[in-house]
Amino acid sequence: MNFLEGFMAVVVRNTKRTDLELVDALGEFGVATIHEAQGRTGLLAARLRPIYRPLRIAGNALTCEVAPGDNWSIHVAVEQAKPGDILIVTPTSPCDDGYFGELLATSLIARGVRGLVIDAGVRDVAELTAMGFPVWSKVINAQGTVKETPGNVQTPVVCAGAYIQPGDVIVADDDGVVVVRRKDAEKVRAASQVREDNEQEKRRRLASGELGLDMYRMREKLEQRGLRYVDGFDE
Amino acid sequence: MNFLEGFMAVVVRNTKRTDLELVDALGEFGVATIHEAQGRTGLLAARLRPIYRPLRIAGNALTCEVAPGDNWSIHVAVEQAKPGDILIVTPTSPCDDGYFGELLATSLIARGVRGLVIDAGVRDVAELTAMGFPVWSKVINAQGTVKETPGNVQTPVVCAGAYIQPGDVIVADDDGVVVVRRKDAEKVRAASQVREDNEQEKRRRLASGELGLDMYRMREKLEQRGLRYVDGFDE
Amino acid sequence: MNFLEGFMAVVVRNTKRTDLELVDALGEFGVATIHEAQGRTGLLAARLRPIYRPLRIAGNALTCEVAPGDNWSIHVAVEQAKPGDILIVTPTSPCDDGYFGELLATSLIARGVRGLVIDAGVRDVAELTAMGFPVWSKVINAQGTVKETPGNVQTPVVCAGAYIQPGDVIVADDDGVVVVRRKDAEKVRAASQVREDNEQEKRRRLASGELGLDMYRMREKLEQRGLRYVDGFDE
Amino acid sequence: MNFLEGFMAVVVRNTKRTDLELVDALGEFGVATIHEAQGRTGLLAARLRPIYRPLRIAGNALTCEVAPGDNWSIHVAVEQAKPGDILIVTPTSPCDDGYFGELLATSLIARGVRGLVIDAGVRDVAELTAMGFPVWSKVINAQGTVKETPGNVQTPVVCAGAYIQPGDVIVADDDGVVVVRRKDAEKVRAASQVREDNEQEKRRRLASGELGLDMYRMREKLEQRGLRYVDGFDE
Amino acid sequence: MNFLEGFMAVVVRNTKRTDLELVDALGEFGVATIHEAQGRTGLLAARLRPIYRPLRIAGNALTCEVAPGDNWSIHVAVEQAKPGDILIVTPTSPCDDGYFGELLATSLIARGVRGLVIDAGVRDVAELTAMGFPVWSKVINAQGTVKETPGNVQTPVVCAGAYIQPGDVIVADDDGVVVVRRKDAEKVRAASQVREDNEQEKRRRLASGELGLDMYRMREKLEQRGLRYVDGFDE
Amino acid sequence: MNFLEGFMAVVVRNTKRTDLELVDALGEFGVATIHEAQGRTGLLAARLRPIYRPLRIAGNALTCEVAPGDNWSIHVAVEQAKPGDILIVTPTSPCDDGYFGELLATSLIARGVRGLVIDAGVRDVAELTAMGFPVWSKVINAQGTVKETPGNVQTPVVCAGAYIQPGDVIVADDDGVVVVRRKDAEKVRAASQVREDNEQEKRRRLASGELGLDMYRMREKLEQRGLRYVDGFDE
Repeated sequence: MNFLEGFMAVVVRNTKRTDLELVDALGEFGVATIHEAQGRTGLLAARLRPIYRPLRIAGNALTCEVAPGDNWSIHVAVEQAKPGDILIVTPTSPCDDGYFGELLATSLIARGVRGLVIDAGVRDVAELTAMGFPVWSKVINAQGTVKETPGNVQTPVVCAGAYIQPGDVIVADDDGVVVVRRKDAEKVRAASQVREDNEQEKRRRLASGELGLDMYRMREKLEQRGLRYVDGFDE
Repeated sequence: MNFLEGFMAVVVRNTKRTDLELVDALGEFGVATIHEAQGRTGLLAARLRPIYRPLRIAGNALTCEVAPGDNWSIHVAVEQAKPGDILIVTPTSPCDDGYFGELLATSLIARGVRGLVIDAGVRDVAELTAMGFPVWSKVINAQGTVKETPGNVQTPVVCAGAYIQPGDVIVADDDGVVVVRRKDAEKVRAASQVREDNEQEKRRRLASGELGLDMYRMREKLEQRGLRYVDGFDE
Repeated sequence: MNFLEGFMAVVVRNTKRTDLELVDALGEFGVATIHEAQGRTGLLAARLRPIYRPLRIAGNALTCEVAPGDNWSIHVAVEQAKPGDILIVTPTSPCDDGYFGELLATSLIARGVRGLVIDAGVRDVAELTAMGFPVWSKVINAQGTVKETPGNVQTPVVCAGAYIQPGDVIVADDDGVVVVRRKDAEKVRAASQVREDNEQEKRRRLASGELGLDMYRMREKLEQRGLRYVDGFDE
Repeated sequence: MNFLEGFMAVVVRNTKRTDLELVDALGEFGVATIHEAQGRTGLLAARLRPIYRPLRIAGNALTCEVAPGDNWSIHVAVEQAKPGDILIVTPTSPCDDGYFGELLATSLIARGVRGLVIDAGVRDVAELTAMGFPVWSKVINAQGTVKETPGNVQTPVVCAGAYIQPGDVIVADDDGVVVVRRKDAEKVRAASQVREDNEQEKRRRLASGELGLDMYRMREKLEQRGLRYVDGFDE
Repeated sequence: MNFLEGFMAVVVRNTKRTDLELVDALGEFGVATIHEAQGRTGLLAARLRPIYRPLRIAGNALTCEVAPGDNWSIHVAVEQAKPGDILIVTPTSPCDDGYFGELLATSLIARGVRGLVIDAGVRDVAELTAMGFPVWSKVINAQGTVKETPGNVQTPVVCAGAYIQPGDVIVADDDGVVVVRRKDAEKVRAASQVREDNEQEKRRRLASGELGLDMYRMREKLEQRGLRYVDGFDE
Repeated sequence: MNFLEGFMAVVVRNTKRTDLELVDALGEFGVATIHEAQGRTGLLAARLRPIYRPLRIAGNALTCEVAPGDNWSIHVAVEQAKPGDILIVTPTSPCDDGYFGELLATSLIARGVRGLVIDAGVRDVAELTAMGFPVWSKVINAQGTVKETPGNVQTPVVCAGAYIQPGDVIVADDDGVVVVRRKDAEKVRAASQVREDNEQEKRRRLASGELGLDMYRMREKLEQRGLRYVDGFDE
């Protein structure tokens, strides 16, 4: 806890990252698949939406806390970026201001960053869309910010309800954003593959008209749980 | 009330539906027109939005209640589907989880269902968009659900603030979703046609520069209601 | 205050407007740029969103207050419209009804109005999109309105949290909506140009990999404010 | 559907009510108990809150639809009131205006009405509290309303997500509001009594320190569902 | 527009105030009455709620803009306070932080300020309640703020959707907050008195059981507007 | 990550707690003070509100995750409770159901638990208030829950946006809820005491009429930051 040591904010350098090959392998799967594969955990709140669609990216979390209405630490974070990162920005108290626009995107692209996830506002969305820079945000808002209060960079954060450590894997697509712990990444990749393989066969059977009730053998359990069939309802 | 009879949930089979020819005739009109034609009634809450645009569909309501975070009864509902239905899903208490995705859509398409209206979350929206499966939902959310608690299928429900009975007609487009009572469907179709015919002439006159004030003869009534014209405002 | 004079609502005729050449010059800049150029002021609340994208328009504010669920005064406002106006509609208490649709858009287009900004609902969005009529609204909603209570037209209003006088300049794009005071329009145009010229050079340097930390000479100030760099974080 | 018959709104006279003795018997139980006793159904949305606490009332539903920003039909409803009624007010589209205040409460008290449930705003809350008139509302708001558009009185309505018919029983307390169908009222009363009797014994055992895990025999089922106990967590 | 003149923020000294005798006379009426008396205008958004009840105060608006998460200008505003003022605080972009607590209240009380209206958060509510210092806020929130960015004091502001000028009269009670223009204060006081006198008689008649339908002579107009009475409803 | 090990949920036994003497010492301070003393960190979202006021408690975090609409793991958590704990309940996806009522409170009181913090709904609030059992919740809601899906107990959680580990210190009062890391508890206690001592003197000076502008020596810095004083504003 840096404040109790006598300074306001820290930047943690040389944090570990997940190997990009593994990151990219996770990026082959959708957010819903990965979230299921790791036991329905790791999802960021659904208020984060892509500024254009369709989109899917994966990368290493580069974390950044910002004060309300103050984007100074994003500039600090840029220097810590490595190719394959996704910038994760979370305000220290809720704020909808437009912390990020075209100039910061230009800077991030120059450093190989793959996209932005921000639990706050973003602006210049026409330009960001034209540049093809992926962003998931809480809101679109032209409101500008100041540069007065530094915030932590590359420390563990809570972003949109999810706990994220630097170097965790972030996957984001049209359905939302999910975080995979660095130490679990390989297991989650494998579990995602199993899940996806399973779905292929299910998809084929359902497309042919087979019922989920039969395919998943649900009928007996439904009856035990108190489901009854009746005819005709007259209201 | 099934619970008081000693079971948890019911599926009502062989409910009446509206003739598809009449359903399709209603589908010729937009949601706003139909809603006006039946006296500004029947609209579902505006929080339900299409996952892609433009869209317009009409169909018979196939109703389904789900427990929070539990999509089991959607699987039950699939078996009750008939071609031309629209699946209506409403949670028994508010929930934003992603109850529905690509596999369920595959199953519904195999049974001729035309789309989904859900007062909760949906996922796999990239796939649903690519498949061309129409969905109106409250939110997009990758969050998965369990299968533990059955819910009623084909009983009257309240969905997004509107009371819907199985076999009522649902029309949905970019403006929202409206329900037409089965017994009123023919009257509403006729009233919608009258309204639409009227609008053609109005559109032509307004496009030529005629004022609504004159066309609708509003000037005298406005004066009676206390409207005054002044000049110049100096602030 | 018209009510205290004994009538319900006023229409102010012959209000001043900003010269269209100046309006169009402001329209060369994005909303975020203008908002910055005038000291981060004038932004309407971020809940106002364009019904399709990309969009950018500029025009003179034609203001209109509406009662909840009542769009009568929009018809009154149409008569006051001049080419180059943007209609600004604000309800006297919050309301999400669909006050505006295709017929009113037809009428406004016939009078040279460039678009609509409404802190309430809009409908017929498929038609409005096909017509290419720009709208920024709080919500899309098929819900219709009545015509019983007149409201003020061309008086100063608060719309989505911003104070707007008739003839102020409105600029709206994918990022949101901003108002520029008529008397400040020329100064804001000049300041916007300075800002945009500056950004060209910054963009080039950031794209080449230069850090904002260096370009903006932030390092010393960050240290003074208590930012520290550490290595390795072990959690 | 009255509109399709050519008039705007109806008042249904001489609707059936639930016997007040039975209503009062239901009022002996809390909202949570009744809601459980009828299978977790009938609850109005949690956005409805009492204007002061503690409160508990029960009565017959006297239903009333209002246009947005228009309380005319509340005046119509007063005439239909009978002793033991609770007035249920629902807007035809969402509205937070203050539809109801001290004068209407005075009128309702004179007719024996026990309280108000309104999915909109209320005002004069200091006076209503001083008078001891119970109100559950969505919001407190001084905003006044007009009297231009009549609405239905004593027809079935959806209020705060629940379907309510005239003469259904309404019970409201600090936890919220629940509706009991008239035809189920006696069964629900009996089921509520059973439930409450059960809770007395449970309360005694839990207060003595017995665990719910043991009292409800949950341990085996929890293990089957995949719960495991571990020691010590080192993070 | 101070920014365009080259400085960040202004404090306007020696603004006019409304005579306290007139302010106090307005404070005799409730917010709902005043709002009606001036034509249903001037109400601040209903999201502003008193931190304890019952409360009613009136005073001169002392206006103050704050940056998000930054309460510096509140300290500046204190110096401008005069006995009988009510401090009006509005953030330049939406923020829920706790801008104000017990120490600032102590300072304001020392200068004769009667209360606080803030479209943001407040903290120390237990202490403020014990001190009897009236506050209307959007939220209660312990989150602290910084002191880096000055904001305007005693300039016209928009607070919670209402346009307020320094020296306008603010009246606040359990129903909400209303602003009365300084130049209209006497007229509004008189109109409020007329309204209140009227209500006395109405209250007496309604309490005796007379119907509003008769007292306001509504029956004929309701019929013209399409209201019909029917019997019995069989659903 | 328990799911990847093949089971659904874990209960961690014998976790460390903070010494109750230290917990109680922290409970001497308000939430705002503690939050400031640890560098404006640790606050739970302001949506959590006490069900009655005034309240202030401190205790060890006993953490519990629940599935949406399912309170089974709360029963599991009760067994892990020790005197001086505060139960922290967080749903795995957002849910407003009433997870907790009088019976669970009876059980917790029997085990020495001091209160409940829940980012979801609570019911039986009249009874809980009468019993004097402190609760901070997101909403009050009579809606009941099922017991089908176990959740983790005594693992690190994110609750209302804050990361909480078992045995961290929770302090809650009328302003909200804050978490103090177990390892920082002593430092935060000391820093809180320093802060509170400081405030005594400030309070005295401000009460005597001294200005914060002078006491905090703000005038020069304000001028540097661009604040100017002008007279008289003519609008």
